[in-house]
Amino acid sequence: MDDGATLIGRLQAELGADAVVTQASEMTGFVEDFRGRYKADALCVVQPGTTEQVSKVVRLCAAHGVAIVPQGGNTSLCGGAVPAAERQAPVIVSLSRMKGIRHLDAVNGSIEVEAGCVLQTVHDAAAAVGRLYPVSLGAEGSCQIGGTLSTNAGGTNVLRYGNTRDNVLGLEVVLADGSIWNGLKALRKNNTGLDLKQLFIGAEGTLGIITAATLKLHPLPTHHALAWFAPANPEAALHVLGMFQAACGSTLTAYEVMNRRQLDLVIEHVPGHRDPLEAEHEWHVLVELSDARDADTIEAALEQTLAEAADEGFLVDAVLANSEAQRASLWAIRHSVTEANKKTGVGLTTDCAVPVSSVPAFIEQATRAVHDIVPGLDIVIVGHMGDGNVHFIPMFSFDAWRALPNAAGLSARVKRSVNDVAHRLGGTFSAEHGVGQSGLPEMAHYKSFEELAMMRAIKLALDPHDLFNPGRLFP
Amino acid sequence: MDDGATLIGRLQAELGADAVVTQASEMTGFVEDFRGRYKADALCVVQPGTTEQVSKVVRLCAAHGVAIVPQGGNTSLCGGAVPAAERQAPVIVSLSRMKGIRHLDAVNGSIEVEAGCVLQTVHDAAAAVGRLYPVSLGAEGSCQIGGTLSTNAGGTNVLRYGNTRDNVLGLEVVLADGSIWNGLKALRKNNTGLDLKQLFIGAEGTLGIITAATLKLHPLPTHHALAWFAPANPEAALHVLGMFQAACGSTLTAYEVMNRRQLDLVIEHVPGHRDPLEAEHEWHVLVELSDARDADTIEAALEQTLAEAADEGFLVDAVLANSEAQRASLWAIRHSVTEANKKTGVGLTTDCAVPVSSVPAFIEQATRAVHDIVPGLDIVIVGHMGDGNVHFIPMFSFDAWRALPNAAGLSARVKRSVNDVAHRLGGTFSAEHGVGQSGLPEMAHYKSFEELAMMRAIKLALDPHDLFNPGRLFP
Repeated sequence: MDDGATLIGRLQAELGADAVVTQASEMTGFVEDFRGRYKADALCVVQPGTTEQVSKVVRLCAAHGVAIVPQGGNTSLCGGAVPAAERQAPVIVSLSRMKGIRHLDAVNGSIEVEAGCVLQTVHDAAAAVGRLYPVSLGAEGSCQIGGTLSTNAGGTNVLRYGNTRDNVLGLEVVLADGSIWNGLKALRKNNTGLDLKQLFIGAEGTLGIITAATLKLHPLPTHHALAWFAPANPEAALHVLGMFQAACGSTLTAYEVMNRRQLDLVIEHVPGHRDPLEAEHEWHVLVELSDARDADTIEAALEQTLAEAADEGFLVDAVLANSEAQRASLWAIRHSVTEANKKTGVGLTTDCAVPVSSVPAFIEQATRAVHDIVPGLDIVIVGHMGDGNVHFIPMFSFDAWRALPNAAGLSARVKRSVNDVAHRLGGTFSAEHGVGQSGLPEMAHYKSFEELAMMRAIKLALDPHDLFNPGRLFP
Repeated sequence: MDDGATLIGRLQAELGADAVVTQASEMTGFVEDFRGRYKADALCVVQPGTTEQVSKVVRLCAAHGVAIVPQGGNTSLCGGAVPAAERQAPVIVSLSRMKGIRHLDAVNGSIEVEAGCVLQTVHDAAAAVGRLYPVSLGAEGSCQIGGTLSTNAGGTNVLRYGNTRDNVLGLEVVLADGSIWNGLKALRKNNTGLDLKQLFIGAEGTLGIITAATLKLHPLPTHHALAWFAPANPEAALHVLGMFQAACGSTLTAYEVMNRRQLDLVIEHVPGHRDPLEAEHEWHVLVELSDARDADTIEAALEQTLAEAADEGFLVDAVLANSEAQRASLWAIRHSVTEANKKTGVGLTTDCAVPVSSVPAFIEQATRAVHDIVPGLDIVIVGHMGDGNVHFIPMFSFDAWRALPNAAGLSARVKRSVNDVAHRLGGTFSAEHGVGQSGLPEMAHYKSFEELAMMRAIKLALDPHDLFNPGRLFP
């Protein structure tokens, strides 16, 4: 190790001076997360333009004993993309210059893209040839493919198309010794040994740097039928989900739930929104069917299922989107929750998943657990009910938060109480956000000895000198 | 190491004498594969009844330095389930007594089963509550869940539901030190570190013994519409596949192709079958749509798409199944190919996958490659066209095979020529059958240095003393 100047000089010599950012003022967007909760120093930020340059950066950092933090669009919700404060300043490897689409095969349903390609760009390229890349989330306009892979991103289409992991055919990865693994096959089936790509998906940059991926494309659904409805309660919402699954099979593509408080916050803090329903209801569901054939069939199925649910008393009010504009405005409510909550106060965002059948019990028990600690605290709820994934968010106003004698301690206690409920129901503390920095104590607390031991053995096997994201994921 | 008697005695003491098979006559069904191509000695066969007993067996074998070959229903097509001849006789751990269904949650869409449970039993249990476990293959009446997991089994529903890997939520595994990893969560989303279950799926028993699994269930499609048609040629079959994908979205559940020779062999060797079409055609496709809503919609879609394909000249003849019995009899043709081929002669079964768009090129180039070696040799073709997976089978009559001066050498040369074509097209030599014994030379030949190095590092990390299936998967 040296003071960093030698390494910076060699990186500049390899990549060109413009690909190495060393000024603190220019590093701001790389060393701090977008919500402003995590910030730490970096030695520099490098922006390689090719896989070979990434390989050179890895070899240089390894030779100098300086750690690497790979970074995509820096949209992590748990501090996963920025350096940790207590560590020696690392080199941030930003993939943002590697944003090419290398190959698109519409017949095979596959697209090969570089890691820095923005998710929305992949959507657009696929749609242009009548295909769908289904991973969809709020940050899709700025998050990068490499980040979605490293976090196994979820989002609003998981119910129908699975997580990111389910939509990857192949990867290209720069390994800890700087070698390049080309695993970019565009195959639906390949049973030849260990499926190594699965290790890098969701590894949060701890095992290697993903530089490119072959992604799975689906037929593009050209027709959508969307409704917003008020279920009688979470149990009723769960029952209606079952009705939709039975009646609509795989045309059911989204089943999103939010509580009254979440809807109110969007209406209050994000311009242009209003309550989709006339009366004031406590629970809200956005349900969408999608199909490639014809609009009439799914619209009829949507109406009929909602009518049956209303007849049976599970549903108290509903509205159907009758235009593309109305459909967009209802989705916009769902996609505005992060912005609304950020403006509201300090939300102790949790990201639990439980078996779908246990979602109502989770909501009830988690509410009670939080109120045992802070009586009457606002609870904001928004989630992907069809996946059992509920963002249960105890919410403090900015004033209340500032007045707390030990905010950090209380935050940890409240989150733990929610995660404990999920754990008792066979669930997880992180369904889709990942571990990052905020989830590390939960990893140590909830994971079994056997599981942590296996994870550590694999980290040691693939990154023996702890080059990539040291201190992460393996508590 | 001792002569094995001490280990046998301790195994009998732990499991009871009836759970340890030592007589050669009683071991036949365990030491030889069902096609009679692979056979080797075993020290004994143990049949533990619980996960704890599996753990004890692993500890005892490890202490005695005797290797373990885990075994399910012994239906491998590549010698993957039986011992290899050149190795020290191992202990076969048969999971056949562990066949319980531990838990079924219809609302969550999940079922927890033990590894020895027969695939058909899982189908039946799911169907009884209106759910589908979609992995379906010829051997489903005897293959076991543990085997389907260890080989990441494919089959005829992959087009719609993916491989086995895509339908697993959690695993329970006995590790090399005898410890038990309980990873049986029944969650759709869980982003908390490495997804360890992915390592054991498709590892062919080299990293641990899978003792139980939580599997994903889907809404049960209650309506099916099936047609058998003759495309003009493989290019036309590919084009019609695209038409179905565009028009029918996810209701398209099967798209199976076979050539004239394959159909003739089924008709000749398996009683009760006849050509579904009036005239004699060179290529045949079985296409099926499935839906939970109503039969009329998918029947109309099937008829309309076929009519359009006929109008455009892609399709020369077609018949629609107009009863459940006719549907079953058409599927029975497809499911009889292994039996028919076994009776025909010695088929050099290959299991390549290529990008779906390259299937016609693969068939054409592989035919030419084989005929360059053995002019005029019969080529039997059956495959899952929608997955790019073609079983391209150069077929010798028994007489011709016996007359060959060097059958083994020629077999290897012919298979390699087919696999080379797949490799040049970005494909794989094993799409769904796995590596087993027959694929080991191909692993060494086709896999990259980086990939084999990573695989070996992981094997060393999880099974440092090479206890499980030594000599397999890692050439």
